[in-house]
Amino acid sequence: MTTNPTSPLLHALVGDEEVGALFSNEAELAAMLRVEAALAEAEAESGLIAPAAARAIGKACQSFQADWRALAEGLAQDGVVVPALVTQLRAAVGEPHAGAVHLGATSQDVIDSSLILRLKDVTDVFLQRLDHLILALEALKIRDGTIPLMAHTRMQQALPFTAADKLDTWIAPLKRHRARLLELMPHLLVVQLGGPIGTRAELGGKGDAVAAVLAARLGLRLAPAWHSQRDRLAEFGAFLSLLSGTLGKLGQDMALMAQNEIGSLRLSGGGGSSAMAHKSNPVGAEVLVALARFNAGLLGTLHQALVHENERSGAAWTLEWMVLPQMTIAAAAGLQRAQTLVAGATFIALE
Amino acid sequence: MTTNPTSPLLHALVGDEEVGALFSNEAELAAMLRVEAALAEAEAESGLIAPAAARAIGKACQSFQADWRALAEGLAQDGVVVPALVTQLRAAVGEPHAGAVHLGATSQDVIDSSLILRLKDVTDVFLQRLDHLILALEALKIRDGTIPLMAHTRMQQALPFTAADKLDTWIAPLKRHRARLLELMPHLLVVQLGGPIGTRAELGGKGDAVAAVLAARLGLRLAPAWHSQRDRLAEFGAFLSLLSGTLGKLGQDMALMAQNEIGSLRLSGGGGSSAMAHKSNPVGAEVLVALARFNAGLLGTLHQALVHENERSGAAWTLEWMVLPQMTIAAAAGLQRAQTLVAGATFIALE
Amino acid sequence: MTTNPTSPLLHALVGDEEVGALFSNEAELAAMLRVEAALAEAEAESGLIAPAAARAIGKACQSFQADWRALAEGLAQDGVVVPALVTQLRAAVGEPHAGAVHLGATSQDVIDSSLILRLKDVTDVFLQRLDHLILALEALKIRDGTIPLMAHTRMQQALPFTAADKLDTWIAPLKRHRARLLELMPHLLVVQLGGPIGTRAELGGKGDAVAAVLAARLGLRLAPAWHSQRDRLAEFGAFLSLLSGTLGKLGQDMALMAQNEIGSLRLSGGGGSSAMAHKSNPVGAEVLVALARFNAGLLGTLHQALVHENERSGAAWTLEWMVLPQMTIAAAAGLQRAQTLVAGATFIALE
Amino acid sequence: MTTNPTSPLLHALVGDEEVGALFSNEAELAAMLRVEAALAEAEAESGLIAPAAARAIGKACQSFQADWRALAEGLAQDGVVVPALVTQLRAAVGEPHAGAVHLGATSQDVIDSSLILRLKDVTDVFLQRLDHLILALEALKIRDGTIPLMAHTRMQQALPFTAADKLDTWIAPLKRHRARLLELMPHLLVVQLGGPIGTRAELGGKGDAVAAVLAARLGLRLAPAWHSQRDRLAEFGAFLSLLSGTLGKLGQDMALMAQNEIGSLRLSGGGGSSAMAHKSNPVGAEVLVALARFNAGLLGTLHQALVHENERSGAAWTLEWMVLPQMTIAAAAGLQRAQTLVAGATFIALE
Repeated sequence: MTTNPTSPLLHALVGDEEVGALFSNEAELAAMLRVEAALAEAEAESGLIAPAAARAIGKACQSFQADWRALAEGLAQDGVVVPALVTQLRAAVGEPHAGAVHLGATSQDVIDSSLILRLKDVTDVFLQRLDHLILALEALKIRDGTIPLMAHTRMQQALPFTAADKLDTWIAPLKRHRARLLELMPHLLVVQLGGPIGTRAELGGKGDAVAAVLAARLGLRLAPAWHSQRDRLAEFGAFLSLLSGTLGKLGQDMALMAQNEIGSLRLSGGGGSSAMAHKSNPVGAEVLVALARFNAGLLGTLHQALVHENERSGAAWTLEWMVLPQMTIAAAAGLQRAQTLVAGATFIALE
Repeated sequence: MTTNPTSPLLHALVGDEEVGALFSNEAELAAMLRVEAALAEAEAESGLIAPAAARAIGKACQSFQADWRALAEGLAQDGVVVPALVTQLRAAVGEPHAGAVHLGATSQDVIDSSLILRLKDVTDVFLQRLDHLILALEALKIRDGTIPLMAHTRMQQALPFTAADKLDTWIAPLKRHRARLLELMPHLLVVQLGGPIGTRAELGGKGDAVAAVLAARLGLRLAPAWHSQRDRLAEFGAFLSLLSGTLGKLGQDMALMAQNEIGSLRLSGGGGSSAMAHKSNPVGAEVLVALARFNAGLLGTLHQALVHENERSGAAWTLEWMVLPQMTIAAAAGLQRAQTLVAGATFIALE
Repeated sequence: MTTNPTSPLLHALVGDEEVGALFSNEAELAAMLRVEAALAEAEAESGLIAPAAARAIGKACQSFQADWRALAEGLAQDGVVVPALVTQLRAAVGEPHAGAVHLGATSQDVIDSSLILRLKDVTDVFLQRLDHLILALEALKIRDGTIPLMAHTRMQQALPFTAADKLDTWIAPLKRHRARLLELMPHLLVVQLGGPIGTRAELGGKGDAVAAVLAARLGLRLAPAWHSQRDRLAEFGAFLSLLSGTLGKLGQDMALMAQNEIGSLRLSGGGGSSAMAHKSNPVGAEVLVALARFNAGLLGTLHQALVHENERSGAAWTLEWMVLPQMTIAAAAGLQRAQTLVAGATFIALE
Repeated sequence: MTTNPTSPLLHALVGDEEVGALFSNEAELAAMLRVEAALAEAEAESGLIAPAAARAIGKACQSFQADWRALAEGLAQDGVVVPALVTQLRAAVGEPHAGAVHLGATSQDVIDSSLILRLKDVTDVFLQRLDHLILALEALKIRDGTIPLMAHTRMQQALPFTAADKLDTWIAPLKRHRARLLELMPHLLVVQLGGPIGTRAELGGKGDAVAAVLAARLGLRLAPAWHSQRDRLAEFGAFLSLLSGTLGKLGQDMALMAQNEIGSLRLSGGGGSSAMAHKSNPVGAEVLVALARFNAGLLGTLHQALVHENERSGAAWTLEWMVLPQMTIAAAAGLQRAQTLVAGATFIALE
């Protein structure tokens, strides 16, 4: 990266490489192709298309070379990339099987299922990072837990307590978030298949069977089409903001404790200043506060998209696309930043 | 009410009498007194105060006459009403038991527990209203389900489907919300007892026992103090906005279907105009959209309060007080409005 | 107020009596009647109704006794209170002039003009309070300006500066807000008169003349009807949040400086605790932070109402009603709280 | 772009190439170097550094080759890219003038001035696009203005009016936004120069002179340092959301009018569906609604950053960086989309 990076430099501060990669153009395309291939398999299994067609589609999906410019133009024109993608995929499949591509499905089936596939990976990352962070905090509690500190209420000294007491207030909500994530995963990780208006009617009486196989192939749960019912995603957004909020509270606490005049916490790896050589800024802690406020605000915007008019709302759906990925990345970045922060934190005893 | 009503006239449109009453001054005071009385009982049971003291406190709580002006002045001065309330309650209890009032507790224990007590009643109302609304929609499906309609995607005619298909998109998320409410109730309906800095240390080793009895007396679950961990309330806020959002989608759909040029839905009880006698406005449907956007926005604000600094944040806590009650009332109002709307809705067959 | 107050107790902390009164039921009714009376006068002057009709309407408006219950029922039914009000007002005027009431106008003309009339009073209050607050800060600068303080960047000690340097960072944006308010007042303080669809067509070619007289009588500027163009109110909302934000920054700074360990500011009138007698909480400072975050969030919601569909949106308009009054009151409360806070603030020299 | 594009594909729908480029890594770096070079010139003019030093710095800035990886690492470490940039720039300048680089300035001076430089270009783009859009709407009014349409209030048919009446409701707020932009430009387009704590004290009594020359060289207005006073940016954010909101209203109106059942507007270039060949979706109109709701929500988040604690808040400042660029791009994209939409719009007479 001595050449100009392609992603905003700011990502070095508030981005997340692992989770960010799940929202890259390539990852989205790969997931959409996975859905189209699995759909063809499911339709072959139900007798809607020939097994040879499914094989041809699967092969074309594996070796697919996108014309990205045409995809971008298609997205700008149609408001969704799938029509252009299907055109390209049909060309790649060629005759006689081109017509079997995307049969009975709609753009939203592909976009939403592709999103859910990647959110499944996201939930794995989150579970793992939550575990690591909770462990790190518990290790810190074992090491520093008996250190006496001053509790502060309403920005004033209250009474003495210990580092363990403080750490408990950070650990407990993280454990609840872990439990919440497990509770919401069955709501979230479901296949989307409804056809043009969500009824599966274009699948000739075999819609439910196709959906069941599609779900199984993608490792997702089965559910009726939920094109215009966006509560699954809005609920996940709420989880993201709850998580970011708890991490923001941890960051705010750390920044307050690390104030020079208070000095009850030492943070390693503090940031330097271009003007004041003596400073060691609690950058990681501040970033957690910024990420919390960012996700809280975006949550309010994501929930505006619940008013999803009729059988498909271009406006509400586009709004989701603009909001949910960045919320997910911000929450992931927070977990990573918090891990580093906790690893470098040392409590200092009250004199 | 030929005399000027004391609540804003706007409540007639977007308020809710039953749930609003749970956030009245009287209801808050009654719940706080219930907490103080139960705390005294729990402390007597643990031997921290004399049984006679608990009885005196209980009696004083029952016959308590507030000096509201002094409570308001105390709230303005202290940022929380409890110090002034405790002063008045101690005076009402009198010697020799005045000192046993509020022993080892902090303002937040009383405020938060009082809130949770009332949210318990709120969840009962919500479960009941959700059941009624789902039933009403299912009854409408039985009556009108086979009526052919035109589905619309991206604001354009798509393909024909039926009223049952449409109704399913409204019913399914409501059922999920009901399940979500049951899932979050154990997180939400917990007692708050921590003492000044959340450690129960002022209860002389008997804090956990006192908390257990207090919880039992109040019909709440037991949990460690969660003064600075506001995820329980932020999660409930997310539920409120999910619910309002689904109702907003229903309202938006109804308003679109009831357009004169579309005419696939007839709504009874339409609103009149001061200038156009021929109009029948879908007021109830529009209100649902307004309530959805209102709660979505407030949710973003409520989640800002997750950044609750140190052991108690006056700023974040006050922000919660300003936001959560009105969100709760708006969600409740939406359920009520939706019930009326559905009761007066008739689908009209596509010609 | 030893009897239960009719407004929420919380208003003692975050409310504002003077500006709150402008949003009371009585104030709204009085302003609507003022609009109806002035409209009649303007229409009489333009020859649309008889002078005797205007006189009868003016008289009825002055002695009008509302049936509040019927107004509330009308609001719930019609989504706006004006049809019910016009019915009552016509009854009060009686024959032969009843038909001259509200001639050629629509509900929105009355509601919006009534709102603007009260916002005119609000802007007067704001200008006055801004002047007082700026004066108080400048007086504090004269008294304490030379006191040496430590500047803090990124929550760490930076370099020494003075109380005057600090105060300048609070005063300068307040002066800009004052200038902004003067800039936006001509956009905001305009009459609303458009008739049912905003064209003034029902006023028989005399719409512009009627509007001009109406504006003059109400002391407002003239503008074409702006029923569905809500930028005037959304711009005012932005001003409210800018103002609250600056006050929130002042409050946050004060709370940070008043920390026991920093001690560079002493605040008089600190709040007491129900559990810790030694504490003096910076309640006023915390409230400013809460009000800032509250109004920032509500601003995002108010701007959602800019998507005001067609010639009148019941949904977007109702949303405004739910948001703008509380934003205005919160901003006003902030100015009042800040005044008290500054009056009791003393800077403490860095040792 | 048959190779994978480096920016998100979604930008094809909701992005803006021209304004987006102003927020690229290269554009930010170029603007920062422009600030460092101009600062050196200003300091040479004030005698703080040697003219040869200024020349050497200017030359180094022109031929500067960034080590982007080191910049990213520096940003992650320090929370701001400037310390790493200054290190690289000093190395590029070499001895004996390395020490003259960034003299007496702080990171925020460079970041904020660099932002304002680019916002100056943004305001030019906006003024130009507003003019074009207003012209296009006025041309449409000349062509289609007399076409009779049905007005709709509260989602119901109201009374007939004309396309000109409709167009006026879109044009008038755009003209006000243009006036608002001109009003706020003097508040916004000001230099930032304050040194480490905003007092210009490190510039040895010549701070104001340096700032004046710096401002002149950059084509910005002069102002005292405003490090912790973020109202200038929050006010600009409000403008962006006002603009997006008006365009969202235009988009919502167009989508409603273009409904098949209403058919009072024909939009060229409608989007295709992957499942329904007969459809022509009003994609551009829907995008305007999405952009409006996006910016409304982000505005609420941007205003949270007004609570900027002390002399520099890492948390609030980082939050700004995450929000303001995307708001600006969304508003710009809206103007572009609206231009295309209006160019392809034809009103259809009411039968």
